[in-house]
Amino acid sequence: MPREITAFSNPLVKRVRDLRDKRHRRAARQFLAEGLRILTEARETGRIPRLLFYAGQSAGHPLVHALSVEVEAAGGESIQTTPDILSKLSGKDNPQAVVGVFDEFDVGLGDLERDRSGIWLVAERLRDPGNLGTILRTGDAVGAGGLILIGESVDPFSVEAVRASMGALFTVPVVHTDWQSFLDWLRQGPGQLVGLSLDTDQDYRAARYAAPTFLLTGNEAQGMPADYAAACDLLVKIPMLGKADSLNAAVATAVMAYEVIAQQRG
Amino acid sequence: MPREITAFSNPLVKRVRDLRDKRHRRAARQFLAEGLRILTEARETGRIPRLLFYAGQSAGHPLVHALSVEVEAAGGESIQTTPDILSKLSGKDNPQAVVGVFDEFDVGLGDLERDRSGIWLVAERLRDPGNLGTILRTGDAVGAGGLILIGESVDPFSVEAVRASMGALFTVPVVHTDWQSFLDWLRQGPGQLVGLSLDTDQDYRAARYAAPTFLLTGNEAQGMPADYAAACDLLVKIPMLGKADSLNAAVATAVMAYEVIAQQRG
Repeated sequence: MPREITAFSNPLVKRVRDLRDKRHRRAARQFLAEGLRILTEARETGRIPRLLFYAGQSAGHPLVHALSVEVEAAGGESIQTTPDILSKLSGKDNPQAVVGVFDEFDVGLGDLERDRSGIWLVAERLRDPGNLGTILRTGDAVGAGGLILIGESVDPFSVEAVRASMGALFTVPVVHTDWQSFLDWLRQGPGQLVGLSLDTDQDYRAARYAAPTFLLTGNEAQGMPADYAAACDLLVKIPMLGKADSLNAAVATAVMAYEVIAQQRG
Repeated sequence: MPREITAFSNPLVKRVRDLRDKRHRRAARQFLAEGLRILTEARETGRIPRLLFYAGQSAGHPLVHALSVEVEAAGGESIQTTPDILSKLSGKDNPQAVVGVFDEFDVGLGDLERDRSGIWLVAERLRDPGNLGTILRTGDAVGAGGLILIGESVDPFSVEAVRASMGALFTVPVVHTDWQSFLDWLRQGPGQLVGLSLDTDQDYRAARYAAPTFLLTGNEAQGMPADYAAACDLLVKIPMLGKADSLNAAVATAVMAYEVIAQQRG
């Protein structure tokens, strides 16, 4: 039977709310995901939350009920609570109907099967959690094999990244590694490393991509280091016709990724 | 001579900080923009802030100095202040070197010259300020004639939208109007209205676009209303190969916009 929590002072509420903070996530190896859409997406990939919080008025919702039953069947706990506590957990004034606490999942380079897809996304020192989530969402849409994060990147399990991913965190494998480990792994098999750069005349539409294509996007403010660019098999640029000569990193990744899959799909 | 403000309690600090709030922006018809990059972009398009705040340690920076001189020459006021007050104004822990207060600018449909560009962006009921700013930034990159916002859309002068636009708010005209006024204006001249939709089999890469193309993106959660879709000359879809069947609105707009300009540039 679902437990009920209505007191802000409940220690579980505090512990779960603390998962909004990276330090606490690291210690607990757990993270928060909100919303029926994202939790349903998670469930379809076999990820069931350890804890499920839902507002009393959502108890009759068939998806909430189904989730709740599955959480309990999997040994987790389903907790009926108040909209105010959901707000506190999610940090939003208008909270979603459900908040789930999931175990973090750890994917290494060795877990990736490069034959799985003709396109892989690689981002180095990504700073903005919204960009990370949006890139994951695009990764899902283009059928990317995964997202490989290089160096000091923002945490994919942050609330903002999970939210922006719209559930793609559960469908697109994310690996966090360093540049040398990535290169070593990459060169053990087929793979064209394509870097997005402003310092080339090669238009991204005129270039030809070979599967599997590994699409490398650099840091939002600085782009990628020169030695990363030098290690690429191909550097391409997206034309910019305006005054600013810059695109959002998630946008640039998506424009590139759709060109790659358009070519690969013929 | 620049004035100096070091007291949080200074009424000007409160008034400027209030511009982070939409209600106060509406009343004052002014907005905030932060950062040397964005303010320099603004200056290059002839937009000089009414008020310029900069931290004392930035006073020697040549761009800050140049801005400061121009602000005073234009009858505005340049104010030296502390990093803490800049933080308070911008709402960020690590504030930019400068914060400017600009008069809002008002562009109407009648001000747009449709021959100015082969591509125009149209978004209806856009909810997320980050998406709006990112779409403006993309608009700058593809050389769009402008962004036309339809219906209840987020405020382009919000701090988050200005920030995400990276200065494109100053380079890309933004018009806010209603659907019927837009349609009436559109049909007074040439223009292909292309709607992004999930309810069509027409692949966006196989479609042919006629300049000027008006690219319509619907609300983030709901897409566009059926009668908007019916008014389009062409509906196209971006293929989605993953589980979620959705893309971020700014990403979808960019993927479309780059296809349109690729065709138009031959």
